[in-house]
Amino acid sequence: MSETTDLSLEERAALGSGADFWTTKAVGPVPAISLTDGPHGVRKQTGASDHLGLSASIPATCFPPAVGLGQSWDPELVERVGAALGDESRAAGVNVLLGPGVNIKRDPRCGRNFEYYSEDPLVSGVLGAAWVKGLQSRGVGASVKHFAANNAEHDRMRSSSDIDPRTLREIYLRAFQRVVEEARPWTVMCSYNRINGTYAGENAWLLTSVLRDEWGFDGVVVSDWGAVRDRVASVAAGLDLEMPATGGVSDARVVAAVAAGELDAAAVDRSARRVARLAARAAEGAREGATFDVDAHHALAREAAGRGVVLLKNDGALLPLAPGGSIAVIGEFAQAPRYQGGGSSHVNPTRLDVPLDEVRRLAGDGDVSFSPGFTTDGSGDAEALRAEAVRAAAAARTAVVFLGLAARQESEGFDREHIELPREQVELLEAVVRAQPRTVVVLSHGGVLRLAPVAELAPAILDGALLGQAGGGAIADVLFGVVNPSGRLTETVPVRLEDSPAYLSFPGEHGHVLYGERIFVGYRWYDARGLEVTFPFGHGLSYTEFTYSGLELAPSEAGVAVRLTVSNTGTRAGREVVQVYAGLPASEVARAPRWLAGFAGVTLDPGESRTVELLLRREDLAYWDVRQDRWVVEGGDYVISVGASSRDLRLTGTVALDGDGVRPPLTLESTLGEVLADPVAGPVLMEAMSGSALPGVAGDEGADLGMDMQRMMASIPIDRMVAFSGGRVDRARLEQLLEHANARRSTGAPAATGTGKDS
Amino acid sequence: MSETTDLSLEERAALGSGADFWTTKAVGPVPAISLTDGPHGVRKQTGASDHLGLSASIPATCFPPAVGLGQSWDPELVERVGAALGDESRAAGVNVLLGPGVNIKRDPRCGRNFEYYSEDPLVSGVLGAAWVKGLQSRGVGASVKHFAANNAEHDRMRSSSDIDPRTLREIYLRAFQRVVEEARPWTVMCSYNRINGTYAGENAWLLTSVLRDEWGFDGVVVSDWGAVRDRVASVAAGLDLEMPATGGVSDARVVAAVAAGELDAAAVDRSARRVARLAARAAEGAREGATFDVDAHHALAREAAGRGVVLLKNDGALLPLAPGGSIAVIGEFAQAPRYQGGGSSHVNPTRLDVPLDEVRRLAGDGDVSFSPGFTTDGSGDAEALRAEAVRAAAAARTAVVFLGLAARQESEGFDREHIELPREQVELLEAVVRAQPRTVVVLSHGGVLRLAPVAELAPAILDGALLGQAGGGAIADVLFGVVNPSGRLTETVPVRLEDSPAYLSFPGEHGHVLYGERIFVGYRWYDARGLEVTFPFGHGLSYTEFTYSGLELAPSEAGVAVRLTVSNTGTRAGREVVQVYAGLPASEVARAPRWLAGFAGVTLDPGESRTVELLLRREDLAYWDVRQDRWVVEGGDYVISVGASSRDLRLTGTVALDGDGVRPPLTLESTLGEVLADPVAGPVLMEAMSGSALPGVAGDEGADLGMDMQRMMASIPIDRMVAFSGGRVDRARLEQLLEHANARRSTGAPAATGTGKDS
Repeated sequence: MSETTDLSLEERAALGSGADFWTTKAVGPVPAISLTDGPHGVRKQTGASDHLGLSASIPATCFPPAVGLGQSWDPELVERVGAALGDESRAAGVNVLLGPGVNIKRDPRCGRNFEYYSEDPLVSGVLGAAWVKGLQSRGVGASVKHFAANNAEHDRMRSSSDIDPRTLREIYLRAFQRVVEEARPWTVMCSYNRINGTYAGENAWLLTSVLRDEWGFDGVVVSDWGAVRDRVASVAAGLDLEMPATGGVSDARVVAAVAAGELDAAAVDRSARRVARLAARAAEGAREGATFDVDAHHALAREAAGRGVVLLKNDGALLPLAPGGSIAVIGEFAQAPRYQGGGSSHVNPTRLDVPLDEVRRLAGDGDVSFSPGFTTDGSGDAEALRAEAVRAAAAARTAVVFLGLAARQESEGFDREHIELPREQVELLEAVVRAQPRTVVVLSHGGVLRLAPVAELAPAILDGALLGQAGGGAIADVLFGVVNPSGRLTETVPVRLEDSPAYLSFPGEHGHVLYGERIFVGYRWYDARGLEVTFPFGHGLSYTEFTYSGLELAPSEAGVAVRLTVSNTGTRAGREVVQVYAGLPASEVARAPRWLAGFAGVTLDPGESRTVELLLRREDLAYWDVRQDRWVVEGGDYVISVGASSRDLRLTGTVALDGDGVRPPLTLESTLGEVLADPVAGPVLMEAMSGSALPGVAGDEGADLGMDMQRMMASIPIDRMVAFSGGRVDRARLEQLLEHANARRSTGAPAATGTGKDS
Repeated sequence: MSETTDLSLEERAALGSGADFWTTKAVGPVPAISLTDGPHGVRKQTGASDHLGLSASIPATCFPPAVGLGQSWDPELVERVGAALGDESRAAGVNVLLGPGVNIKRDPRCGRNFEYYSEDPLVSGVLGAAWVKGLQSRGVGASVKHFAANNAEHDRMRSSSDIDPRTLREIYLRAFQRVVEEARPWTVMCSYNRINGTYAGENAWLLTSVLRDEWGFDGVVVSDWGAVRDRVASVAAGLDLEMPATGGVSDARVVAAVAAGELDAAAVDRSARRVARLAARAAEGAREGATFDVDAHHALAREAAGRGVVLLKNDGALLPLAPGGSIAVIGEFAQAPRYQGGGSSHVNPTRLDVPLDEVRRLAGDGDVSFSPGFTTDGSGDAEALRAEAVRAAAAARTAVVFLGLAARQESEGFDREHIELPREQVELLEAVVRAQPRTVVVLSHGGVLRLAPVAELAPAILDGALLGQAGGGAIADVLFGVVNPSGRLTETVPVRLEDSPAYLSFPGEHGHVLYGERIFVGYRWYDARGLEVTFPFGHGLSYTEFTYSGLELAPSEAGVAVRLTVSNTGTRAGREVVQVYAGLPASEVARAPRWLAGFAGVTLDPGESRTVELLLRREDLAYWDVRQDRWVVEGGDYVISVGASSRDLRLTGTVALDGDGVRPPLTLESTLGEVLADPVAGPVLMEAMSGSALPGVAGDEGADLGMDMQRMMASIPIDRMVAFSGGRVDRARLEQLLEHANARRSTGAPAATGTGKDS
């Protein structure tokens, strides 16, 4: 990039940190860049920025936070939301909007889960990529965050996420990889935490080897705000832009480090060029005087919120409600909705749909009463509030009870200690249901709740999670069937918190979190351990019925082509989210019984059938092989299941795939069993050892050995044979033999009889 | 030691490896040492040793393997068994008997679990120490094994046990530490596996820093047979003796490495001196022409086996059986008992009690029939065998069904893939119980079995695990009440294998096992996750009844003195194993709800009461603090529960303990919250920052912040304040402040107002 060629070292260093809280420095020909918080709205601060970015922000559409948006399982919709956010960013003069968040929801207690999509990396990656594509289509850059393995708020600026390499790749990096490779975000935001002891912002393996060298990322790595501890180490590792401003302190340290020979000037230059390129992109994408359509965006926010509502339960087809009946709306959240989370993503909405108003609007002539039922701050006379709600419920045809968590009960910055609804809400529900069996529960919350008590009491449950500023309208839409619900859970609802994978290791202690459940996160865990759940991953009902038929599976170079027919056999138009899970029962590594490998939405009129086609990418069937430090697709019979949730599988088939055919080379640490099984090395070793009197290896003695002794022998690394043979097996000869065998294996040449015998 | 001062480097190196499979070399004045397999009998091979130590061995008493012996929870008994083994070793000319095995039973599938005591480190350590004391009292050395974290047989010679430091200390090293510190074993045997990537035999941290420097071990570290991969690396790490012989190959490598400057000659010298000292001890302990009393040892084996039998269930007081009745003995194991495990510990017994014979002996005039019921090798007509057994059961007053695992189903060298009884045995039991409700099941097995089906069917269950050569007599003793059972489970019997802690990570893959469940092994896991179990850790019934009363707890410097009264309120004399569990609900680290901190046996006549006193050692209340790399006893209210099993707690009290008062020093990585809470640094920092306009730190702005923002601020490491303050907070000044505060903290001096302000 020519923009930086004339810059001094000092100027290049200056490009690598902020001018203030939200902008970078204009240096020479390089213009400043404006970054601001997302992801579900543009949090552009008003007036001068302060030191913590806490002051008020301009009005912006508050789209559903990731927890609600993700429940749509709809990348096309997410892309449109991304584009709308791009329009709002442009109108606000923002060049980079800080999102999407694609961290995995490892534990339901993580305070920031509402900013993330799912416990599953495929859902997270597909939706994250769609968001980036939408946003960047408007000339505004994304910042995929928080890279990486930032899965708890507790001690987040120090804690080390200790993760084995396979788990890191398959679960915690997979969504990032997909977003980077598919959507080419302008920036990636490194997280606060450490990963296996090294700060994300100082992690050359993460920021350079993986992100750039493997995934081909060509943008800017920006720090989470305040994540840089040692700017020099960060620059060396591949971090380009420290935010916010440091008053020039860290720029000066970079210059000094170069002067002292502690930092390669080329690293400073590389980062400066990347920042300059980002600034150029930003300038090119900016549109002076751009505006956006507030009404259209609110409508989009309502559409997105409607897609995000999950119908968890609907006994006796209690929903949708018919207009005209009498409804007792109960619960403070109906008039003071909980619609977004606390912390850096908190948006100042352009307007706010109040659920009670929207219900009244759609109820037509119906009589809609309201009772708060409880308060979220403990004020008021709880007994009286409950009694009044119960009276109202009894008097109405149907009760709609709004339950959930108050803003102060969950936020960025801290984790929850439990996943219970407040006790008074469950008691209220109990009393209401006793008085009115026709009770619908509407839930608002950022993180997963234990729903066993609610599910036991209420015949119908709508899960709204957090739905943004138009959530009130969307809930009304679904309650009355204006929208037929098609949202699906992106997280498992466990029976008990104690059943959850990270229950005993979250959020860590003394600066470390061991990700001991490994790849078994979310439904992978509940399925592998055969645990009951209250609502499974992928669950979500509809007001109509869908049937599945005619599964066809065809292997291809790219993966597995899946075809099936979905029919709407009910009486309403609706959208079905078809989920495809893969499993490999004979895998040589531990695998989840099934993992999500693809999904697609299909909208059908009553009586309509349609063929759904999707590709399970080979990449999404691979596992990370720690011996070879690479992805490997195993050959074998993959079991492909298609269904409406992870535990509502309707069709199953098997498809045989060829493996990648890559095997780790034989070494002196290879076992006798492994070497003897090798077509080249096996026969040679067998002959070489024939005089060594090693039972089980050669000679007649082996015949006398029990099965257990044979198994013990087979597991001995061959370098130990040097000792066991009393020196008769020569180390150098073994090494030559292995080298020869490995060369043959990699070229695929057949074994030459006797070769290596004399080597 | 003077023995080695005149030896050449070559001779010193030669002392460090075997002369053949079972003996070391006599070098100069240093005599040879004879080592041989244990631990539950002396497996001294006959004739010349072969290269794998597989040939036949001389007759020796086969005491109960650790799985059976451990169920006694009786260190006094274990010490007597150790002494008897010492006598037999002396008689066989053996100087070092390879035992005890104190590895933790992490997963029920581990093939070698029968050689280990428990899932609990206290039980393992107490019994292991008793065994060593007994053995070494006879001038024979022990070899505590397999050091360390060798908890699976799968790929055992390569696999790395990846364990966080706290778990390693609290669970996997704790029993070793106790044995070394209390019983001072002559040798420690290093294991095959790697620990966090480094082979145990090359692990200087393990073999030198921990074992010798911390624990004060002064003996010889011997390799497991064939565990040495690189003798030079092993010597450098602190391994003294490689076994078996390498034909001089590895000795020559050691000499060459010293010559090449790759190995410090002092390391070779140290190891040679240790081996020489061991040889001197061995020579001193040896008794030419020693013999042992075969009958007395068989009687001890029977006593020990009787103590190891666990009465799991006894509905309707079906047991003990009265002599004289008719009994249908069913099951091949009644005439071909399964009494020890396969692999290196396999003993050639001096005699063998056959359960059927012993039952007939004690049945007096009773009519005892026998039906094999099944075969363990699948031979014979299964239908006919079952039908005959059912007929016999129906015809008798009581059926006694011997079920279990055959030798080939579990052994050293491989792990089980499930924990089921063979299906035909459960089906047999089902049929027998249908015909004869008065059915007693006797179990023989090395590893834990899923017992839900058996427990559902049979009114009475005796768990014999593996009981050694006199197990047949012991089982008869318990069946007829000659011995009142007092054995207790040392492992939890889970409802399902899928519930077990390491279910998804055992036995590992591609050379690594992640100990992801951390400290939550065995009952610690089931209790912490609130899981039902079939039989809990510590469970075991009696033919009499015991009541507990009068719990008194008194803190002392050494720990907590526990006093209580146990009364035999039943009609038979019996022994009760009193178990004391500790918990610390307010701990700052994750803890098991309760962990075993002490136990004691008490034998009481009917109607007798006795005061039981025991000390919970402070060491057994400590946790391993990874920040300070040391044991820490937290101050606080410890909940002490006393009971007959981990889930049959009879008395509970609380005792307040002072903590060790050690805190990690403040550093630049300490959070703002931590520094502000410090009595010295807090006020100074507060003042220093008063001008920095940092909300939440000082000034009025803090008052406006939400709770979440305040929590976020408190979690920021103070070195980030340098950047956040735009350079107003100076790094050097912060460092001085912390140094000052740390100095004050360590001397306990009060804060001097204003000090550090100018520094």
